Amino acid sequence: MTLMEYVIQKASHAKEAARKLALLPTDVKNSALLAMADALERQEAELLKANTIDLNAATGLSAAARDRLTLNPKRIKETAAGLREVAALPDPVGQIVGMTRRPNGMQVGKMRMPIGVIGIIYESRPNVTADAASLCLKSGNAVVLRGGSEAIQSNAAIVRIMTEAGGKAGIPDGAITFIDNPDRQVSTLLLKQDKYIDLIIPRGGEGLMEFVTRESRIPVIKHDKGVCHTYVDASANLEMAKAICFNAKVQRPGTCNAMETLLVHEAIAYSFLPPLIAQYQQAGVEVRGCPRTQIIVPSVKPAEEPDWGTEFLDLVLAVRVVKDMNQAMEHIATYGSQHSEAIITQDDSRALRFLREVDAAAVFVNASTRLHDGYQFGLGAEIGISTTRIHARGAMGLEELTTPKFVVLGTGQLRE
Amino acid sequence: MTLMEYVIQKASHAKEAARKLALLPTDVKNSALLAMADALERQEAELLKANTIDLNAATGLSAAARDRLTLNPKRIKETAAGLREVAALPDPVGQIVGMTRRPNGMQVGKMRMPIGVIGIIYESRPNVTADAASLCLKSGNAVVLRGGSEAIQSNAAIVRIMTEAGGKAGIPDGAITFIDNPDRQVSTLLLKQDKYIDLIIPRGGEGLMEFVTRESRIPVIKHDKGVCHTYVDASANLEMAKAICFNAKVQRPGTCNAMETLLVHEAIAYSFLPPLIAQYQQAGVEVRGCPRTQIIVPSVKPAEEPDWGTEFLDLVLAVRVVKDMNQAMEHIATYGSQHSEAIITQDDSRALRFLREVDAAAVFVNASTRLHDGYQFGLGAEIGISTTRIHARGAMGLEELTTPKFVVLGTGQLRE
Repeated sequence: MTLMEYVIQKASHAKEAARKLALLPTDVKNSALLAMADALERQEAELLKANTIDLNAATGLSAAARDRLTLNPKRIKETAAGLREVAALPDPVGQIVGMTRRPNGMQVGKMRMPIGVIGIIYESRPNVTADAASLCLKSGNAVVLRGGSEAIQSNAAIVRIMTEAGGKAGIPDGAITFIDNPDRQVSTLLLKQDKYIDLIIPRGGEGLMEFVTRESRIPVIKHDKGVCHTYVDASANLEMAKAICFNAKVQRPGTCNAMETLLVHEAIAYSFLPPLIAQYQQAGVEVRGCPRTQIIVPSVKPAEEPDWGTEFLDLVLAVRVVKDMNQAMEHIATYGSQHSEAIITQDDSRALRFLREVDAAAVFVNASTRLHDGYQFGLGAEIGISTTRIHARGAMGLEELTTPKFVVLGTGQLRE
Repeated sequence: MTLMEYVIQKASHAKEAARKLALLPTDVKNSALLAMADALERQEAELLKANTIDLNAATGLSAAARDRLTLNPKRIKETAAGLREVAALPDPVGQIVGMTRRPNGMQVGKMRMPIGVIGIIYESRPNVTADAASLCLKSGNAVVLRGGSEAIQSNAAIVRIMTEAGGKAGIPDGAITFIDNPDRQVSTLLLKQDKYIDLIIPRGGEGLMEFVTRESRIPVIKHDKGVCHTYVDASANLEMAKAICFNAKVQRPGTCNAMETLLVHEAIAYSFLPPLIAQYQQAGVEVRGCPRTQIIVPSVKPAEEPDWGTEFLDLVLAVRVVKDMNQAMEHIATYGSQHSEAIITQDDSRALRFLREVDAAAVFVNASTRLHDGYQFGLGAEIGISTTRIHARGAMGLEELTTPKFVVLGTGQLRE
């Protein structure tokens, strides 16, 4: 079998499954998810064995990458708990969204349907395998999973256990299709299968985004980087601002919605920055400031031009004193990545203007950018945070894995 | 200037305009649209002169293509009327969609925003130029227009008149960016400008769809072909069925939502088909039937395998007698293009099953597929009918030219 035949076999298998999945009753999907959760916990030993093979083979990884690759009993329990949460969410498929009567008497509405086949291309973390598969299943989509080669044994074991438990519960074969050939050429070929795959969601670094954007014939919803700002306005409640700014940087710096640059209005910079920067420094944050920040707090390092617009993903923060909100918004428009942006202010008209004018997937008033998350926003779960401007922007939940079709109820209407 | 420099200059100019357009008040956009409509009518002579140059240069065109390319006073009036209708529609930008309070007290909702820069790649018809530009403008998007080379003088004149009138009314330069270099390589380069262009909408034949799908780094919403079916169930009201089937085929056969294949339940085929086919034949429709159709109406030609699944776009119809709704739905799944599908039935449970199970952008019960249209569906106007499964499926109006961003109103919320 050639690589092309292999890829077409996998993709077409998923497409066949998608037709059946689209019509599967909610209770079958839910029972399957619960059975999968039980099976993952029951077969913990098999999972850990597969994971050990991956870990032994992965010699060149950084400590952080190695940690992301690692499975342990606690993480397996969390994964199983995640599947049970997805089972408990409402099924979006078949929901009718708005139904209006037209002047000619016909009723027109929309019904949510699965997208079809969703291809997920992702790097190392094996927990993505179970998360993504469960969300696609619940929303009636087949999924084609192409994980990182370092995690191939762990991912294969997760899919094997989920498929076996799902099969017994009535899930069609191919619903969770795993690409078990690590050849890089397979990804390229997969991205050409627009006949079988309806949407590609890449999750990973810039190299992966560039590769998928370049090669894909299939619509892509990117999960790209977040260069997130918090702007502390002259009118801010400074205690609240301090708590939010600390949380946005320190609570979990390695995530896409963590703050990377702090912008502070000049009128409050002298009172606001010294205690906050002291708190950052105590927490191990390296602060890189603009010249005015350095005057206010001489211990900070100078920020260089490339620091603005950098996603540090680490305990590093760039700080700039701005003369007003206009300059803050201009800075965000120039250096931001349109991911998550926040203003801290007690002035309602400025808050509203910031909300309207800042172009980002999520804009916050008086809250931490770290709250940009499907669970926090009430979507129940998330497949990720879209940085694409079409279909879904920001946190994507089950609804964003569906597509509305028009449904029309007539009584003999014709086109005049 | 190289072609690449030319393309980047055009695309980046549109991007700059988009930032300003996103914030433009509704009344400025509406005044501009009204001024553009007046200007098009006032400068009719200039438009007709430009169109004559195109028509004189277009020697090899079919009569139908020549007709599509032709402007006349009536068409210019219709175009101007279209702009005034768009001015009268509600502005979707800034609309808040749902606002809920989370357990931690923060309020989360979505606000509709412009997508940014929309590239429209289309063939001959110059009316698309004004339609697409007006819808993009109203929804706060900049547009990059790449029309067919046969219509280049007509399109350039339309854009020139609209831009001049818009400029006086406060529309930023670049809001309607016209690609005036007919070199085919320009389209290829345009499709690589994902830094500046956020969405591509191709409108045209299969060759254009294939080209755009292959070359684009930018998300694409296709407007592809419609192989539409009407299934007449055993329980149909046959008079209603006859009127709908005639309308769906004959009212305007050259459109993507016209019926191409009629599926008839065997229980009513003997009573239903003879009078309907007689009516079709009187109207000049060439009917191509399955063997059972030929037994019932011997005068019909045999349908060959390629007739199923063909978009005739003409007075040609394929007819098949099916043994039940399952076979009809199987036929639609095999040969349809997921565009517009209809069932004619008085049986509510079959109607509901058809609505749920048929995979298409619009599914109709007891109505003509020709009604799949933005105006008919109450969207006000349409940029086209999407055959892509993400972002917008089926008729696309102003709302589908926006993207929702999350807006969060907090009171100091942190991520725990």
